Amino acid sequence: MQLKTLTLAIAMTSAATGLGLATAIDNTAQAQETFEWKLVTSWPKNFPGVGQGPERLAKLVDEMSDGRLTIEVYGAGQLVPGFEVFDAVSEGTAEMGHSASYYWKGKAPAAQFFAAVPFGMNAQEMNAWLHYGGGLELWNELYDPFGVDVMVAGASGVQMGGWFNKEINSVADLEGLKMRMPGLGGEVMSRMGVAIVNMPGGEIFTSLQSGAIDATEWIGPYNDLAFGLHQAADYYYYPGWHEPTVMFEAIVNEDAMASLPDDLKAILRTAVRDVNQDVLDEYTARNNDALESLVNEHGVELRRLPDDVLAEAKKHSQDVVAELAETNEMAKKIHDSYRAFQEKVVDYHAISEQAYYNARNPEGDTTGE
Amino acid sequence: MQLKTLTLAIAMTSAATGLGLATAIDNTAQAQETFEWKLVTSWPKNFPGVGQGPERLAKLVDEMSDGRLTIEVYGAGQLVPGFEVFDAVSEGTAEMGHSASYYWKGKAPAAQFFAAVPFGMNAQEMNAWLHYGGGLELWNELYDPFGVDVMVAGASGVQMGGWFNKEINSVADLEGLKMRMPGLGGEVMSRMGVAIVNMPGGEIFTSLQSGAIDATEWIGPYNDLAFGLHQAADYYYYPGWHEPTVMFEAIVNEDAMASLPDDLKAILRTAVRDVNQDVLDEYTARNNDALESLVNEHGVELRRLPDDVLAEAKKHSQDVVAELAETNEMAKKIHDSYRAFQEKVVDYHAISEQAYYNARNPEGDTTGE
Repeated sequence: MQLKTLTLAIAMTSAATGLGLATAIDNTAQAQETFEWKLVTSWPKNFPGVGQGPERLAKLVDEMSDGRLTIEVYGAGQLVPGFEVFDAVSEGTAEMGHSASYYWKGKAPAAQFFAAVPFGMNAQEMNAWLHYGGGLELWNELYDPFGVDVMVAGASGVQMGGWFNKEINSVADLEGLKMRMPGLGGEVMSRMGVAIVNMPGGEIFTSLQSGAIDATEWIGPYNDLAFGLHQAADYYYYPGWHEPTVMFEAIVNEDAMASLPDDLKAILRTAVRDVNQDVLDEYTARNNDALESLVNEHGVELRRLPDDVLAEAKKHSQDVVAELAETNEMAKKIHDSYRAFQEKVVDYHAISEQAYYNARNPEGDTTGE
Repeated sequence: MQLKTLTLAIAMTSAATGLGLATAIDNTAQAQETFEWKLVTSWPKNFPGVGQGPERLAKLVDEMSDGRLTIEVYGAGQLVPGFEVFDAVSEGTAEMGHSASYYWKGKAPAAQFFAAVPFGMNAQEMNAWLHYGGGLELWNELYDPFGVDVMVAGASGVQMGGWFNKEINSVADLEGLKMRMPGLGGEVMSRMGVAIVNMPGGEIFTSLQSGAIDATEWIGPYNDLAFGLHQAADYYYYPGWHEPTVMFEAIVNEDAMASLPDDLKAILRTAVRDVNQDVLDEYTARNNDALESLVNEHGVELRRLPDDVLAEAKKHSQDVVAELAETNEMAKKIHDSYRAFQEKVVDYHAISEQAYYNARNPEGDTTGE
């Protein structure tokens, strides 16, 4: 049909190299331009959950672009260390990265607002703020001086409060506890008497088992089970007030992005948006099964953090976040947008999501205390 | 393959241009094949929220395919009536549709499981079941006899319980109430003494204002405000136990899908997944603002449905859904998958999303009763 007509037309003009052929070559030159990108991540290659995001991204982009844009995914340490992903993308060592923005707080403290805020917004709320509340524009403004574009590329959902080898019955029990908890949550905990210990993920299990630490936060049932943390701790506390979700980021070197034709730009952006939802879908589904296995097969004791711990943590969280807002003008601007949106969405979710959860399951947790 | 042979032959006979031209013609011929599709919807053209989904889909597909696949979006009644979308796609009158599966319960009662189930799963849970719990495969199996492929294409989030011109303080107050509520929720309400009245969306406002009906459910603050329902009713009840979300669907005629080359198939699927999240993001953000306007500017009285109404509705919902499962074998299969996933996700969300909402906002709703 159309196909045949075209090739015939080309055949008919090919001797003289007429207009039909010129167009053909022109279009082809564009169609033929291929891009081979490197994507560096802060996760071990093929890490369950979050590590599947960049793999899916590469596959989708390859399929949609018919091979014109291919993305090679590198795990943490394969091309650059996990905590150098931002620099690598900024400098162009890699065209893309998949990570979480709180790792870059040394460069821009306000980056933490886009990853996880203690007592802040959950995944559904963050996505609404980022895509329809001006959040993503602010995030790009924050990264602009580094020559980096950013998109939202996954969410963990509400995380767990952490693994403890000591029962926590009140705030007093936190005094002197040695816990591994990074970021804003760790700062809150330290104001509640906890001795915060920092260490790479790879050292957590043995430190917990040896008693070098009494407690650690990690992610949620799916990742925690795979990590074997139930073999090193007695109690599994919830909820993860310090990380109501972690949002993951896809970052792109600005020049690399600019070099793409418009269709490949659109393909890249849309693939990232697919991944953004897919990672949360996977976590939600896998966490179910993992929780069942932890409780029923491994005899893990689920405990809710006591009311006074949650209330105290909430108070300190407000202070810590307010102090973060004071670090510079951009932090203030992001904070104000974040908080304005949160106030409204908390009101709305009080009568929708929250009210529905409580109507469907008025007992709340029935597996724990 | 035949094409390649042909173009190679052309190139080889075109003395001046050689092999480069052969490749050029081959790629160009493929790149030039274009598809013009019609997409019919069950919503008025450009309806706020859900009606934006198909518009965004068309835009993304056009950008990503560089115009090779264009989709013309028709509002309800522009090409076919809103309730004939499924038939139109099945018969090939339109290649695609955007709708909600509960409209097709006359053809396949089990279709209702994929739209909204009273006291069932919310948007995050539905997406996890559909994409990682086998739900989407079952949905496609259900539509297969009709020659229709289906993808998930948006969510409303938890809806509102409805607009009432009579205070509901207990189940007794429901007796004889005339309410517009379609679907499974309406069946539940009728078992609680409500007289269910069915009518098209366009008649709701005047029926409520004239007293022909005492109450109606619609969607949520964003759509309800636009519809002006606050001008016709006194009380706005929550939560929407009957629709913990509505999931929207993108349906594609199987032959039309099969006619697309692989890259366009991938582009279409990924664009739909983008829209799937985007619609919920928009609803979450816009509902916030609309709720504020309804309460603060229009003086709407927010009320929580009484505990006994919710408890009774939950009991009848279990019966109604169990009866739906008995309609045929496929309904049973879908029901069993749905319920198995829901049981696990309710347990997991009890210690994550639900526990977090309650820790962040222990008072729950502070705007209502």
